[in-house]
Amino acid sequence: MTNISRKVAVIGLGSMGLGMAKTLVSNGWDVAGCDISAKARDALIDAGGSAFDSGAAAAKNRCAVLCVVVNSKQTEAILWGEKGVAKAMAPGSVFVSCATMAPEYARNFAARLESDGVHYLDAPISGGALKAASGELSVMASGSAKAFECADEVLEAISAKIHCLGDSAGAGSSVKMINQLLAGVHIAAACEAIALAAKMELDLQVVYDVICNSAGNSWMFENRVPHVLEGDYSPLSSVEIFIKDLGIVHDIAHSKHFPAPLSAAALQMYLAAAGAGMAKDDDSSLARIYAQLSGAKLP
Amino acid sequence: MTNISRKVAVIGLGSMGLGMAKTLVSNGWDVAGCDISAKARDALIDAGGSAFDSGAAAAKNRCAVLCVVVNSKQTEAILWGEKGVAKAMAPGSVFVSCATMAPEYARNFAARLESDGVHYLDAPISGGALKAASGELSVMASGSAKAFECADEVLEAISAKIHCLGDSAGAGSSVKMINQLLAGVHIAAACEAIALAAKMELDLQVVYDVICNSAGNSWMFENRVPHVLEGDYSPLSSVEIFIKDLGIVHDIAHSKHFPAPLSAAALQMYLAAAGAGMAKDDDSSLARIYAQLSGAKLP
Repeated sequence: MTNISRKVAVIGLGSMGLGMAKTLVSNGWDVAGCDISAKARDALIDAGGSAFDSGAAAAKNRCAVLCVVVNSKQTEAILWGEKGVAKAMAPGSVFVSCATMAPEYARNFAARLESDGVHYLDAPISGGALKAASGELSVMASGSAKAFECADEVLEAISAKIHCLGDSAGAGSSVKMINQLLAGVHIAAACEAIALAAKMELDLQVVYDVICNSAGNSWMFENRVPHVLEGDYSPLSSVEIFIKDLGIVHDIAHSKHFPAPLSAAALQMYLAAAGAGMAKDDDSSLARIYAQLSGAKLP
Repeated sequence: MTNISRKVAVIGLGSMGLGMAKTLVSNGWDVAGCDISAKARDALIDAGGSAFDSGAAAAKNRCAVLCVVVNSKQTEAILWGEKGVAKAMAPGSVFVSCATMAPEYARNFAARLESDGVHYLDAPISGGALKAASGELSVMASGSAKAFECADEVLEAISAKIHCLGDSAGAGSSVKMINQLLAGVHIAAACEAIALAAKMELDLQVVYDVICNSAGNSWMFENRVPHVLEGDYSPLSSVEIFIKDLGIVHDIAHSKHFPAPLSAAALQMYLAAAGAGMAKDDDSSLARIYAQLSGAKLP
């Protein structure tokens, strides 16, 4: 039997997945990556990994498969689509699902995969591309003891903090949704505030410095407003990510008859940004929508 | 001529003003307080200050008058109402206005008072009752060089950080409004998020711990959600404060034709809380409104 320990696959080599894969390579792991983009695959090969264009090829003889794609639909296709990883994974290995998705999908995927003898860890991540590259992500994980045990070493390598949120899939995704609700609303609030400050013709750098030291601060205000001050909307995290994530929040709240007026108002602003052609720009682009609507002048 | 240095008046001995007055007493200042409440006056006398029931009496022969009332209307009454301080203040002394108000009021009051030979500092404060008591407030100040010079020592005694925001009244109040926009939206978002977590039957303490270490965090989430977890809505800062402050944000945005959908949605939730009888309860009471609307079970 092939020794599969310290051999890992990373499916999805975007800004998060590639950073995680490189971190694993530099921690001495044998990393097989998979992405539809040849450029992304080449980047991993340059860093010392191997790369494939099918999930099945990458996932063979690995102790863990990290799936770092965008949503539940892509995750399902990776698992059970053409050349999917589910059939290729070693018995007793673990599938670590990092995409943000509604908890019902996480529970469904876990049940299907576990019936085939492969463990499933519901493990959405937080922290952004920079922390992915430095191995300092925050992981919101739930799953069986076996799933945690199998994923332990690989999670240690990629994260600064592993939150163990329960013994079955679903809890990790649920807590991630609460985080995304707040993150999405806070970005929109930051853009509303800084654009209103611009409309009032205040010194925006001064406003930023004061707020960062006051009770109005948020992690997102501190992180995103500099993009507005620099007028640089190249995407670190794009508008469409929050259309997806607040869309999931909306669906969950809707299904539970939970009115969520702040999340709803924020979602409308992301939709407006996408409608104005900024879907793939940085999410701080909401400030440009507020400026368009109000005539505020931004840097 | 009477020596007025290190003699200060504090008008309004509520949770903020009394803490500031006591801090000044313990820093060796001669403090004359004024409040309509005999209980508040007695508290200052017990702490070593003197107290009066008219602003004019308290403000006589003082180098600075700190006005720590709720809004522009009260501030105007303190200055120019019956037994107002404006006529009682020493020439060349400074009126330090700490209430949150629209910047146009700050500019108007400054112009009127300065024409009478008294300086005006537009100096809203942030930090809450605990920081008022410990002399660690954050002050968002603007005014003439003379106003800053006169207020310098007294501001040093009450604050950890003095933001000097410009050479005329208005800028301090403007930046404070931006802070209040964010603070008000963040409290509402925190309540929306924690109530949704309750509706999803998540472990709320775990959610709190994860969010405090994630990108969804805000100063207000970290500060207010413990009130919800403890089920203790005794007011540290009340619902009606944010009805006032988001009301001012709304008025400014309206007058400038600036659409502010997140602030507007948040204001509706504060109004709902007040309508349900919680106007004087802690502002984290918004979580109880979300619970009422959705059937979520809170501690």
